[in-house]
Amino acid sequence: MKNLLSEKVVGIKPSGIRKFFDIVSEMKDAISLGVGEPDFDTAWHIRDEGIYALEKGKTFYTSNAGLKELRQEICNYINRTQEVAYDPISEVIVTVGGSEGIDLCFRAMINSGDEVIIPQPSYVSYEPCAILSGATPVIINLKPENSFKLTPEELKKAITKNTKLLVLPFPNNPTGAIMEKEDLKEIADICIENDIYVLADEIYGELTYKGKHVSIASIDGMKDRTILINGFSKAYAMTGWRLGYACGPKDIIRQMTKIHQFAIMCAPTTSQYAAIEALKNGDDDIKMMREAYNQRRRFLINAFNDMHIDCFEPFGAFYVFPCIKEFGMTSEEFATKFLTEERVAVVPGNAFGESGEGFVRISYAYSVDSLKIAMERFKNFITKLRNS
Amino acid sequence: MKNLLSEKVVGIKPSGIRKFFDIVSEMKDAISLGVGEPDFDTAWHIRDEGIYALEKGKTFYTSNAGLKELRQEICNYINRTQEVAYDPISEVIVTVGGSEGIDLCFRAMINSGDEVIIPQPSYVSYEPCAILSGATPVIINLKPENSFKLTPEELKKAITKNTKLLVLPFPNNPTGAIMEKEDLKEIADICIENDIYVLADEIYGELTYKGKHVSIASIDGMKDRTILINGFSKAYAMTGWRLGYACGPKDIIRQMTKIHQFAIMCAPTTSQYAAIEALKNGDDDIKMMREAYNQRRRFLINAFNDMHIDCFEPFGAFYVFPCIKEFGMTSEEFATKFLTEERVAVVPGNAFGESGEGFVRISYAYSVDSLKIAMERFKNFITKLRNS
Repeated sequence: MKNLLSEKVVGIKPSGIRKFFDIVSEMKDAISLGVGEPDFDTAWHIRDEGIYALEKGKTFYTSNAGLKELRQEICNYINRTQEVAYDPISEVIVTVGGSEGIDLCFRAMINSGDEVIIPQPSYVSYEPCAILSGATPVIINLKPENSFKLTPEELKKAITKNTKLLVLPFPNNPTGAIMEKEDLKEIADICIENDIYVLADEIYGELTYKGKHVSIASIDGMKDRTILINGFSKAYAMTGWRLGYACGPKDIIRQMTKIHQFAIMCAPTTSQYAAIEALKNGDDDIKMMREAYNQRRRFLINAFNDMHIDCFEPFGAFYVFPCIKEFGMTSEEFATKFLTEERVAVVPGNAFGESGEGFVRISYAYSVDSLKIAMERFKNFITKLRNS
Repeated sequence: MKNLLSEKVVGIKPSGIRKFFDIVSEMKDAISLGVGEPDFDTAWHIRDEGIYALEKGKTFYTSNAGLKELRQEICNYINRTQEVAYDPISEVIVTVGGSEGIDLCFRAMINSGDEVIIPQPSYVSYEPCAILSGATPVIINLKPENSFKLTPEELKKAITKNTKLLVLPFPNNPTGAIMEKEDLKEIADICIENDIYVLADEIYGELTYKGKHVSIASIDGMKDRTILINGFSKAYAMTGWRLGYACGPKDIIRQMTKIHQFAIMCAPTTSQYAAIEALKNGDDDIKMMREAYNQRRRFLINAFNDMHIDCFEPFGAFYVFPCIKEFGMTSEEFATKFLTEERVAVVPGNAFGESGEGFVRISYAYSVDSLKIAMERFKNFITKLRNS
């Protein structure tokens, strides 16, 4: 009997997020604060464009890189929000969510042994996709005392002569940390000096609660060494549509498009038509949802303050990441006990890397009513723990 | 300056199919017989389910492997057409078209140096995706004198101790060849004897014009060593929906699902709801389209016979693959000259592997009217060539 499976793949653990969902979906009265997905339906005018495309019989392949009009609108959008000008023909590819863009970037750039720097805690896909591409992941453990930002010192220490790519995951899932313009400038200098490329995952860019999101691609000298990933899932509540994009240097985009052509063909057509509408007329939807998230964010931060739970104030995405070290349990023990005893699902911080140990991720992409009940249960839970 | 790109990726040529489309789309009066895509809109009742899902706000992620109901319907469909019973929970994954399934299968199974046997001419993705996964492709050049079938002798000769996987691409794109039950039995015996797995790409399975398509998974002993790829693009004219599936041994499907979870998340939600309707109530749509294709197929075969063009009679997919060796040109020269002089686009046979040299692929997923004009132009063209 031969070795049936790829050893590289077998060695990768499945995502630690899903486990709790399966339990919670079977549990009566349970509240899940686990999923990283907007609770809003996609705005009606966007869905309407998808419906219109189906009615008109637009059920065929698009070009591999995506509809030309969509790529043009993506460029317009980035230009008006970041003042970075991309060429829609050679510097943009439409992907199946931001996820595919991340995977394609690794596959297009990595040779065996190249090092990819991955700050953690962060989204669960970077490390597996890097490993699958043959890269050696180099993990930076971000620190709460730095507001979970990536510091120049941390980056410098992680760089070797084999470093090819830095993953820059801000606004951050799961911590909610953001990197501001001054932070990014220091990171950019180091990348330029060391000839390092940046995979900037800005899928939560539109959900920033302190000033406007700044893309590292907008920093002088960085457009040519940044692969900018964004998409429609978070900002426009379009997760199920599976649509994202990558912008970057044309040599890299060309290779990403080649892999995409063979492995995926093109992103779903209905979604592409809907996304044109989102970019053209969706700014108000984003604003409405951002305000709703911000209200919930403040509610949670206040609730944790009142409970004297150590919780870093996040300014991006839709997560808070409270510290639960005082209870002397691992994140997984805490989350399991909380779910069993209080019927609320949160995600153990270590699902996002070892440095997430001692924290739990709480998504506020849920109604204020659910959040209120969940916080009452949280209070019950920790009161019992503190008294025992 | 570092080596910016993956050498493996840079070494892969882009698909040879697309080039002609770009030219033809700029050309007045041109007829394209180039695209491998049904000319039918998706049936209205299927589109209607997609629309209904959008209206109801079903715009969220599904589970990674796809909606449970869809996986159940996929199993029902395979059971009633092939009498093979798959478990919807552990043996099925819903993918972004058949393409993603092929890519996932290689990524989940291949260790560097494993050999993958690829019969050619065949679909353009197998060889690049195999190379990207680290496999060593071993090409079998199929022969017109064998009706472009894979013969037991050819397979035996290609097997070494490193052979892990055989790609079995029937009904075949571009030749239209099929493998019948007796053919498959001989192939199955060799696979079992040599402990080889089969990636059976049956995306054209529903488009068979000589008896019913037989899946190699239905041959005794083969379910446990077959990864069956199919989807909705060809049978249901749903290319733009980007939806396919893979069925296979649970250990392989589990690893494929893991990669899919990190790299794609889930297939598009709207498409999944529409696909449930397709499987439940789409048999008549398939029948109607198959009859239309068959009529066109016979028209083309007769036309080539009348012109004394050597053309193997295809019994599957929607392509004919006439031989153009008598004209003393390469396939690319022939296709380019035909397009320039007669404004008809066909695909050079060498786009599907070296053994396609001397042939051109003509798709009959076009209206009879277009095919009639195209055949008149073809006759003009070859008459000029024969007289010169």
